[in-house]
Amino acid sequence: MSVPLVEIVRSGFVEGCHHGSVVALDADGTVAWSLGEVSTPILPRSANKPLQALGMLGLGLDLPPELLALACASHSGEPEHVATAAGVLAKLGLDAGALECGTQWPSREPVLRGMVARGEMATPLHNNCSGKHSGFVCVACLMARQAGAEPIEFVRGYVAAEHAVMREVSAALSATTGVDVDHAPRGTDGCSIPTFALPLRSLALAFARCGTGQGLSDGHARAARRLRQAAAVAPFMVGGTDRFDTRVMQAYGERLFCKIGAEGVYCAALPELGLGIALKVDDGAARAAEAAMAAVAQALLRIEDELLRGYSHLQLRNWRGINVGSLRPAQALSQALAP
Amino acid sequence: MSVPLVEIVRSGFVEGCHHGSVVALDADGTVAWSLGEVSTPILPRSANKPLQALGMLGLGLDLPPELLALACASHSGEPEHVATAAGVLAKLGLDAGALECGTQWPSREPVLRGMVARGEMATPLHNNCSGKHSGFVCVACLMARQAGAEPIEFVRGYVAAEHAVMREVSAALSATTGVDVDHAPRGTDGCSIPTFALPLRSLALAFARCGTGQGLSDGHARAARRLRQAAAVAPFMVGGTDRFDTRVMQAYGERLFCKIGAEGVYCAALPELGLGIALKVDDGAARAAEAAMAAVAQALLRIEDELLRGYSHLQLRNWRGINVGSLRPAQALSQALAP
Repeated sequence: MSVPLVEIVRSGFVEGCHHGSVVALDADGTVAWSLGEVSTPILPRSANKPLQALGMLGLGLDLPPELLALACASHSGEPEHVATAAGVLAKLGLDAGALECGTQWPSREPVLRGMVARGEMATPLHNNCSGKHSGFVCVACLMARQAGAEPIEFVRGYVAAEHAVMREVSAALSATTGVDVDHAPRGTDGCSIPTFALPLRSLALAFARCGTGQGLSDGHARAARRLRQAAAVAPFMVGGTDRFDTRVMQAYGERLFCKIGAEGVYCAALPELGLGIALKVDDGAARAAEAAMAAVAQALLRIEDELLRGYSHLQLRNWRGINVGSLRPAQALSQALAP
Repeated sequence: MSVPLVEIVRSGFVEGCHHGSVVALDADGTVAWSLGEVSTPILPRSANKPLQALGMLGLGLDLPPELLALACASHSGEPEHVATAAGVLAKLGLDAGALECGTQWPSREPVLRGMVARGEMATPLHNNCSGKHSGFVCVACLMARQAGAEPIEFVRGYVAAEHAVMREVSAALSATTGVDVDHAPRGTDGCSIPTFALPLRSLALAFARCGTGQGLSDGHARAARRLRQAAAVAPFMVGGTDRFDTRVMQAYGERLFCKIGAEGVYCAALPELGLGIALKVDDGAARAAEAAMAAVAQALLRIEDELLRGYSHLQLRNWRGINVGSLRPAQALSQALAP
């Protein structure tokens, strides 16, 4: 059974609650603490992008830090994200037409409004997954060259589970999580690639391994280190203006290597503690996933500042800007995190 | 304890779940069926707008059907809503400056984009509550005239719990729900008026009474009938394009008098069965509140059509438009509703 993780409080009255589960464990799989159902498979969605990026690096993808950070991103479609993804494709002689992630308007509202005001249209480059997909396209071109195939032909259909690129990316998921994803339930993700059902504890294990290198092949350990450093050097690329992942990695660098996923999933590595964290909010609310991750990070890293507290106790304002309440960790979570 | 009401299914895999509670009962308070915690107070938010409108009618508010429907609305800020609310104020010699609901951009995205493209700014008239607030302003002017006071002075501050208008509106909540809201926990709503914590069963009772007239004063019973008829005649005013409340009242008229509220609340009256329904999704998700209300309405009214099923089994599409799954009633809800 999942447990209450985050409450919604309005004028002192508990108006609602988000249920979910969370686990923190080390690279040996030893659970530091957990709440709820952590052995039941869930769909990790974009929270596993760093693990997929690990697979791409293992295949020989070699990009500067900001592009590696973008490959791990669920970005807000801001001009820097779009231009960077476009640049990756341009070097291959390709454009947005090569991307199979679908078109999405920027989630950053001022950016979206600017585009609308200028009469511009969204493209697949604005899709929050365009960095990862640009990486997939790079890898496909690499593999095509190695196989002596025509790159453009080889790239096409890269989102399919059976495509050579996706098979290698999936193999990295299996290697890092310890779950054979070929035998896991599979869903189609928002960006059309497969997403494999994995227990939270397996996801947390993969992040503990990425944070420490323990339990990974030498190649994956090196790749994990590069990705952590890339996200710390270019945190804007992982999310964007005012985004949780970006703000906390700007503040704490490699201390908190974190990634949000759709439908309430969050994963993180805390290298200094040797821990990986994975959580799922049952109902899929991002506000609750961020609040829970902020509460966990504050407690485990012993950080007391306004940044993380601003998420764990997110202030709620009404249409006149009046403070009408906040989120806060539910009793089950705050007790579990108490020193 | 609340129960699983609605599941999120992706590619056949249950990816998530919304917990909540729901009750259906008659105007005597006899429970037809219920699930979860229905005696614990919740904040009804905008789901109680029809009850507040009842209070306004009781104070002598007399408006044509489309304006009464707008007074019950959480509308999408479309041009018809804005113009209608502006018209109400203009007749009083007032404008958007009289509204104390705060400024909100239209929730209907094409409308918002059109405004942005034309360089227009949102006003309090675009706020989803502007119809109700225009009603409050009308009532305040009426009361000012009766008291021989200066209307503009009297109107100012009408959102405060202690204002004469709000006291009368709150009295109607007490009369219809059977709960003395003066002694209920109180929160500040999104539009700055008070929202009083009431058990779901009391909210359902008020809607059962509104659907039948039983248990109401003659004046409130007449007012309830006028509001039901108004919503059925002008359902667009209650919500807007593609909105649940609008679509179902366009389809079923007075058979299903329903109103959504923020944070996962939904209320409805089913006059032909003499039942009122109230539900709360713990985590506040509108998608789940709509899915649950659609499932309940289908089962109780024995309606089998694509409209309600489109909400109870909402199809989920990804950025390429591929169908990747759906919502569906969780087992606890579907079993409770089985004939």
